Order: sequence, then C-alpha cells, then structure tokens
Amino acid sequence: MLVETHYVRFDQLALDCGETIGPVDVAYETWGELNADKSNAILILHALSGDAHAAGISRETGKPGWWDNMIGPGKGFDTSKYFVICSNVLGGCRGTSGPSSINPVTGRPYALAFPVITIADMVRLQKMLIDYLGIPKLLAVAGGSMGGMQALQWAVEYPDSVAAAIPIATTARHSAQQIAFNEVGRQAIMADPDWNGGNYYDGKPPARGLAIARMIGHITYMSDESMREKFGRRLRQKEKYGFDFSVDFEVESYLRYRGTQFVDRFDANSYLYITKALDYFDLSNGKPSLAAAMERATARFLVISFTSDWLYPSYQSLEIVNALRSHNRDVAYCELASNYGHDAFLVEVGEQTEVVRGFLASTFREKG
Amino acid sequence: MLVETHYVRFDQLALDCGETIGPVDVAYETWGELNADKSNAILILHALSGDAHAAGISRETGKPGWWDNMIGPGKGFDTSKYFVICSNVLGGCRGTSGPSSINPVTGRPYALAFPVITIADMVRLQKMLIDYLGIPKLLAVAGGSMGGMQALQWAVEYPDSVAAAIPIATTARHSAQQIAFNEVGRQAIMADPDWNGGNYYDGKPPARGLAIARMIGHITYMSDESMREKFGRRLRQKEKYGFDFSVDFEVESYLRYRGTQFVDRFDANSYLYITKALDYFDLSNGKPSLAAAMERATARFLVISFTSDWLYPSYQSLEIVNALRSHNRDVAYCELASNYGHDAFLVEVGEQTEVVRGFLASTFREKG
Repeated sequence: MLVETHYVRFDQLALDCGETIGPVDVAYETWGELNADKSNAILILHALSGDAHAAGISRETGKPGWWDNMIGPGKGFDTSKYFVICSNVLGGCRGTSGPSSINPVTGRPYALAFPVITIADMVRLQKMLIDYLGIPKLLAVAGGSMGGMQALQWAVEYPDSVAAAIPIATTARHSAQQIAFNEVGRQAIMADPDWNGGNYYDGKPPARGLAIARMIGHITYMSDESMREKFGRRLRQKEKYGFDFSVDFEVESYLRYRGTQFVDRFDANSYLYITKALDYFDLSNGKPSLAAAMERATARFLVISFTSDWLYPSYQSLEIVNALRSHNRDVAYCELASNYGHDAFLVEVGEQTEVVRGFLASTFREKG
Repeated sequence: MLVETHYVRFDQLALDCGETIGPVDVAYETWGELNADKSNAILILHALSGDAHAAGISRETGKPGWWDNMIGPGKGFDTSKYFVICSNVLGGCRGTSGPSSINPVTGRPYALAFPVITIADMVRLQKMLIDYLGIPKLLAVAGGSMGGMQALQWAVEYPDSVAAAIPIATTARHSAQQIAFNEVGRQAIMADPDWNGGNYYDGKPPARGLAIARMIGHITYMSDESMREKFGRRLRQKEKYGFDFSVDFEVESYLRYRGTQFVDRFDANSYLYITKALDYFDLSNGKPSLAAAMERATARFLVISFTSDWLYPSYQSLEIVNALRSHNRDVAYCELASNYGHDAFLVEVGEQTEVVRGFLASTFREKG
C-alpha cells in the first residue's frame, strides 16, 4: 500500500500567543475512501516525533508509517471501512510549517522568529485541513501521547465536529515531572554551541544536544521492566568492563544509536517548539477545574492507558475519565496490561486493536 | 558542633582495573568518641554528590553536614553513644584523591589519566582508613543510594570487620534504567566543548554539561508526587505563559538553579568516574546469583527503602533481603512510607531515626 504525502497551503493562522502567521503549509496523508455522506472520517494525531506518514509504505522513502500496525485494512483503524487522515503538526519539520520553514518576511528559515505555539494552535490548523477536505464532522479523533492531547483539545474546542475521541497514554495537563524532563531536553539542545541561538540552518545542526534530548526521551518512553528485559546488564561486544568512558553496556549503545539516528530526521528547533506546546498544555487553563473545562466535550470517549507507562501514568487518564463522568458523558476506560511503558501505545497492538475496533464500530452504527 | 576535616595519605592503592595508584589522600570527619574497646565505631558512606562532611557545622565552610538530621547527639546515629566516621569516596573531589587531584607523574591534575574505579575500590580505601584509625571491627556501616552499595560491598568483602550493615534506598546491582540515566548525564558532560577530553582544569569547566547531568539527576531523586506538591504547574514570577524559551514554570527555575549551583561545588570528571562506578556495581559479578555472592556476608542487616523511590525501587531492596534470607541471615526490612522519592533517605528522618536507633542499640548490646 504505497502512500503519498499531500500538501495544502493556508493563507494565515491566528495563534494563542496573539500573533498571526502565514502562509501555513500542512503535510497530510490519507488512507481508505471517504463515504458518500462523509461520515466515516477519522483524524489520527501524532506524538512529539511523529509525522503525517502514519500508515502504509511511503512512496517517497519506502518506509512504513509510525502506526502501521494499527491503521490499514482489517486493522484497529480499518481503512476498508474508514477514511483515515493524518497531518504533521504545526511547529513540526516534516512538511507542515515550523521553525525550519521559510519566513516570508526574510526569505530565510524562521528559526526562533517562529512564534511559540500550543496544542490548541495545532488543532486549529487541523480544523482548517478538515474543512478544506469538506468533512463536516469527524467520526473520531485519535492519538497517543501528544496525539491524545490533541484529541482532547478537539473534543473541547470543536464539540460539534467530533463524534468520538480516543485519547491514549496521555494527560489533560502536563505535570511538573513531565515539564521537567522536557526542560532538560531543551537545555541540552540550547547548551550545544552549534544551536547558535536557533540559527544553524546554513551550518551544522546541534546534533549532540538533540541526541541527548532524545536519549532522555527514550528512557522515559520505556519501562524499568522493558529495559531490564531488553538489555539487562549485558555488555556490548566485550567480555568484561572496559574501564573507560566508551560504551560498556548494551543499553548505552542503544541510547547513543537512537540519539544520533534522531538527528538525521528531526529539527532541533522543532523539538524546542513542540515540547513547549506539550508543557503549556492544560485543558483546565482559565477554568476552575478540569471537569469545568471538559463540560463542552460532548463526544463519546474511549480512554486508554497502559500499566507500565510511568511518563503518562494511568492516574492521569483517570482524571480525564472522572472529569467526563462528572458530566455524565459516554466514556469507556481501558487500562491495558503491558511491560512496554509509554511505548506501549505504539507496539502493544493486540488488545488495543480490539478495543479501538469495537468502539469505532459502535460509534459508526450510532453516529456514522 | 564545629567539625574539622582530617586528611590521611596512603602510599598506594591497588584497583579492580589492574592499576595501582599512589599516593592516595583521604578526607574524613569524625563525631563522638571511640570507646575503650573500640566497639562503637560506625562508618557512614555517602552518595554520588556527598562528601566527608556528613554532620555538624564545618569549621571551614560554616555549613551543616549532608546528613546532619540523622547524625548527632540523640539522633538516629547517636554521637553521644557511637563514634561516627565519614570519608569522601575515591574518585571524589572533596579532599579524597580523584581526577582533579595532582598526578605525581606529571605534576598536573590526573583528568582522564585517573584510572576508572569501582565501588569495591572505594571500600578498599575505606578499609585502609579504618585500619589506620585502629578500629578492628565496625559496629555498623550505613549509607543511602551509592552509600548503600558501599555498605553491601563492606559486608561481603570484609565480613569479619562489620557487625551490622544498613543499606538504604539502594540496590545490589545497577539496572539498565539506572545505567541509562547515568549514561545520558555523562554524555551531556562530554558533549560540552569546555569538557575538552577532560582537560579543563586550567580553563573553564564544562558547566552547562554538568548542570544538565545534575538536572536529570534531580528529576530522578524526586517523585512525581513530590514535584506536583512542590511546583505543580505554577509559573515563575509571571501571570501567563511567556511564549518564549526562557523560564515559564517554577520547576524549570528550580532545575536550572540546582544545575548551575552544583557546578560550583562538584568536579565534572568526578561525576563521570563516580557514575561509572555506580554502573559497574553488581554484587553478583562472577557469581551464579546474588544469593551466592552474598553468602560471605555475616553481618546483621537493616535494609530500608521508601515507597515513592522510583530510582531505587523497593523491589531492589527486596532482592537484597531475599538473598540474605536464603542464607538464614539476620535481616530486618523496612519499607517506609514517603512522598519524597529517592530524596527520602535524606529528608524523611522521623521513622528512619526510630528504626536505625533501635537496630543500632540491639546490635551494640549483642555485639558491641
């Protein structure tokens, strides 16, 4: 199933910070067919390092999508029944406008002249894409981690445009610990002299800083158990300790590899902007409580968390569930057993497929 | 209670890596009086960033010791009854020989010419100090975190010299996740151009890299709960988001402060060496099991962990307890309730004082 990335340009976008930017490009992919009454569209929302290429094989790169195990014919998001859409987020670096895009005022990359954005800004741009595609109401919005935050924001901001929401392994507001991990990643990038105040696009990118940020991220995406199972204390191509500061353990080798590999596909400034949007995310902003903030959300909900996810622990999903229940909303909550930590939403497809499939089918029967 | 740091120099020390270094200096402090039959001595063992100044007010700096709430007259380690000793670890930067010490071969700081050391090397040097002080057998060895590892190593390596061991908030072997956090900290230091391959002693230290390593550490020392209670999502001296990359949240400000503050009192190369010693630590090295490795330990044990400590979780203390019980050793295990995470061993003194006091008193009655 070869897929192609499409692009659409919008004249301008008003942002939470007060600024307006334009033009704004959006990269997106679609799978399956929109039905005659346009009632089978599902918007997939990606996490920090994701992109529009959620499923199938990219015609451009030959690579499978980041959620290919969940999206496709017969899969959890069944593209033989549903029309599935995924776009790269605002602030990203995979086709949608972000700090590495050309600033029309200067003719050079925005860098830090790109305005600081929020999850709500990302969602506002997605709404423009959905309007452009002529879809009056989405059957569902779904995503894990930052994707789940966008799903929540959609449900609160555009209640008439969303029949169902599936926030997975996520939170209604970033906690101090979540902010702290992101802040250290940002500090690592900004401490790299190659970052150069964000102006590195005609030189070397801040590769070491970004790699360190990514390494920190990877530790938080795995669980203590999954790291023990995958690496334990195994040494890397040696029989005994090296007694130096090169790689001794498999886990060190893995982290260094994942860190440096990330630099080839991700823009360091995008990492700053997107983590800041995560940290700013608080659905209850300006409201007396999360429940008050979620009163506007009328969609059906399927909330999923994973037992070993310590980055977005189950109690944060339960806060969402409780806020919805206080308004007597239709909400199903599944805490799925997994050792994979936060990564579970990407790799633990068995049960996740079943609950998503059943939830979408009943939503489509009732509201599609 | 003003205390003074003492120093002793040993000609040489044989290390696990195969090298021998010398001379080796040790900085240590003592509190209380050694009794006539030398049966009331307790060796306190410090954690990653600690030093010999565990209690009282330093005559040199005017600052209280890092465990002043646990050590003193009438406290958990009661200096009106016991003679308490604490020394800076090998590889440190607070008076004991480490990478910032002068290499007698070159007349300049060792930097990376200092051999990579282990927890067992630290303990071997402590044994030389105890012999020098004329103490045939310690009433107890005690410490939290890395201090707990040294206590375990003492009990296994010098069973005839230790009546009791109190390993707190620690593990018998570093896990993949623990290694991973340390490795990212080391990478942050080594990515700082000011690190310069470890040769920065006549220039600027790698301040930004060390600060980032320390920030990562601080997140792991606290708990999700304690960070929520202490910071939540409170903004720092502003009413709303700044929409830039300066400090928005209190937790960001705290981490930056703790990171930069650390640079003034700690040597970046010592951070590399000591974290490596932590990662190498595995009591079961070369033995079929932890139980087999701990067979030599004949001391009484008091093992303490804290409920919210996710860096050294309780299951790791239980592994120690189970290994000891398999040899029918005298072992008491206390899991103390605390929200403070790994920091609990430093701040949660109430119950900890009671269990330590009782354990020491009964040990002194039976073996003192």
